[in-house]
Parts: sequence; structure tokens; C-alpha cells
Amino acid sequence: MLYPETINNLIECYKKFPGVGEKSAERMALYTLEMDQEIIDLFAQSLKDSKKNIKRCKKCNNLSETDICSICGSETRDKKVICVVEEPKNVFQFEKIGSYNGLYHVLDGLISPLEDINPEDINLDSLLDRIKNDDVEEVIIAVKPSVEGETTALYISKILEDKNVTISKIAHGVPMGADMDYVDALTLELALQERKNITSHTE
Amino acid sequence: MLYPETINNLIECYKKFPGVGEKSAERMALYTLEMDQEIIDLFAQSLKDSKKNIKRCKKCNNLSETDICSICGSETRDKKVICVVEEPKNVFQFEKIGSYNGLYHVLDGLISPLEDINPEDINLDSLLDRIKNDDVEEVIIAVKPSVEGETTALYISKILEDKNVTISKIAHGVPMGADMDYVDALTLELALQERKNITSHTE
Repeated sequence: MLYPETINNLIECYKKFPGVGEKSAERMALYTLEMDQEIIDLFAQSLKDSKKNIKRCKKCNNLSETDICSICGSETRDKKVICVVEEPKNVFQFEKIGSYNGLYHVLDGLISPLEDINPEDINLDSLLDRIKNDDVEEVIIAVKPSVEGETTALYISKILEDKNVTISKIAHGVPMGADMDYVDALTLELALQERKNITSHTE
Repeated sequence: MLYPETINNLIECYKKFPGVGEKSAERMALYTLEMDQEIIDLFAQSLKDSKKNIKRCKKCNNLSETDICSICGSETRDKKVICVVEEPKNVFQFEKIGSYNGLYHVLDGLISPLEDINPEDINLDSLLDRIKNDDVEEVIIAVKPSVEGETTALYISKILEDKNVTISKIAHGVPMGADMDYVDALTLELALQERKNITSHTE
């Protein structure tokens, strides 16, 4: 015999999460037994709701409980700027800093010929539609600095070439608080290439 | 705005687990959205069942879905031997090795004067009852080698002194596969003290 069935089931569920192995799943299952009833109820209910309530915003493709997400539906956001990101979680990363007041566009992937992910496989058509129909002035590309990210950024700037919209890309370089000893060579190279003048030499 | 409410609730629930911080909880919540419906259903159901179905075995105090757990209720187990452990999960650790065929007794804690955990706070009375009423021949103490573990082991051997039962303690020493470089001094000292003869010197 091993664990009672309910505990075994919990272990199996926890093991589905990335990075959670047999031991962690066991620990979590046993910990579950000590949780308060109200937390358990909220937990079970949220799990069920998550499938039912969470859909994608019809405009920006972000996670939302309504057809149009609260960002796209907001009166106070700057609708002239769209920040293009790879995944929904990136939206929340930007929202957390609190200083960006434009809209978003979630691609749900990056172009990757190696993995057979082509432009039509990611959410680009709806981005074009938004640029055509809405009064967009700037598209900020905020995808990760990788081959796929660069390819996607290049492709987006290509298809938006004749659309009378400014296209920008977030800065890459040495992150804040990083110990220079541990910054990799590629990041350093990027940081060097994209260096900014702080005073200009005049004679 | 941050995440939709359902996702926020999930994050709050995941954050309750030991060792799960904000970022991991977020990752788990977003991962939940990608899980299959049947896993979600099993997950939610198991959570609810865990509070309702899991109780303690009336005999050994192990986690069980029945009044008497499957180990205590088994016909094939050796009822003459009781292995005393600290927590329910230790039972499952021993069960996994598969070679132990006796019963268990879960203390739910160790004696710790510093933390004000006294003998009457852990599950010792029922151990005494079992020794008095059942036909027990050996009690194996399998608690961790710490001040609390040693105190508890000492206390148990004290109260069982006159009970005509063999008391043993699991061996402590260098674990299998350990790199000697990384074995701590205390473990080495224990290993040395509890050394076993492999040949005996005869003249």
C-alpha cells in the first residue's frame, strides 16, 4: 500500500506542474491536508472557474474574464500605443511596473522556422487589423532577445512598414542590479552596441 | 489592473504552499489554465475530498480513509513489530522500500522542551496501550537523529523498560552513495561510534 487514494490523486495533480517532482508533489499533497477549509474551498472553486471563466480578450488576446479585457476597455489608457508581447504573463509583468499606460497585443508565440512556427501560427493578423482600424501611432515590440524574438520583431516591422506607425523595440542590455561578473558575453555585446551618449563631445 | 480574479485567487492558493513564492505561484496559476479539463476536475475533487475523507487510523495514527488503516488492518503484516515514526510521511517512506512488514506508530511530533512539546503532547499514550494490549515483541524507533529525536527515543525506551519488549533504533551513519567529502562531522562521529565489525581479530 502507498498513500490513500485521495492523497495519491493530489500527488498526481501536483506532479503535472513544471518543475514539481515526486517529492515536492508529496510534500504539497501532505501540506494540503493541513490547509484551512476555506482555502481548500477557494482553491477547488478557482480551479473549476479557471477553465470556465478565463478566455482571451477579443482585441488584444490577453487573458480576461470578459470579451474585452479591462485594459482594452479602459477609458484612461492611451489607445495610440500598442506593446507587442509573447505571452499573457508578459502583460502582467509590464502592468506591475505601473508606468506603461498603452495597450497590449499578445502574440501567443514567436516565429521559429526551426520549430515550424510560421507568421500565420501566431496572432499577427489581428495586430494588422488593429493598426488598420484603430488610430495607432506606435508599436513597441517587447519580445525576448533571442533568434525567435529578433525574427518576429523583424517580421512585424516588415508588415507594418507602409502603415504610417512608429515601431520601436524595448532596450536590451545589462539588467539593473546585475553583478558585472555574471553578465554573459552576448548581453555585454548588445549593451555595448546599444550604448547611449550621456555627454556629447563638442570641440 | 492585475490578473483576472480567478487567476489571482489561484495565485493566492498556490502561495500558501511552503517554498512557493509569488513568481512560482504565478507560473503555476498560468499553467493551470493549460491543464486538461479532466485533470482540473480530479484536482478540484481531490482537494475537497482531502479534507473530508482523510482521517487518522485509530490504531497507529497514520493517514487513512478508513477508521483502521490498510496497514493495521492487513492480515499479512507482522503485528509483533511496531516502527515508531514522527510523521505520516515517514510511514510512506518506509513503505516505499517495501521490505518492512511490521506495523507503524505515528507520534505526530517529537519531545522538545525548548519548544514546549512535552511527552503528553505527542501520541505516546496510544503506543503504551498498544504494547499493553497487543502482542508486541519489538519496537523500532525510527526518528531523526537530532536532540528532539534522541530525547524522544530515550523517553520511549524509559516508559517501555518494564514492558518485556525489545527496543531498537534505526542505524545512523554515512548515507549510501554519499561523497565522503560532503559528510558532516556529526554524521561521521556517529558513523564511527556505531561502527560494525566485518571480521573479528582472533589470535
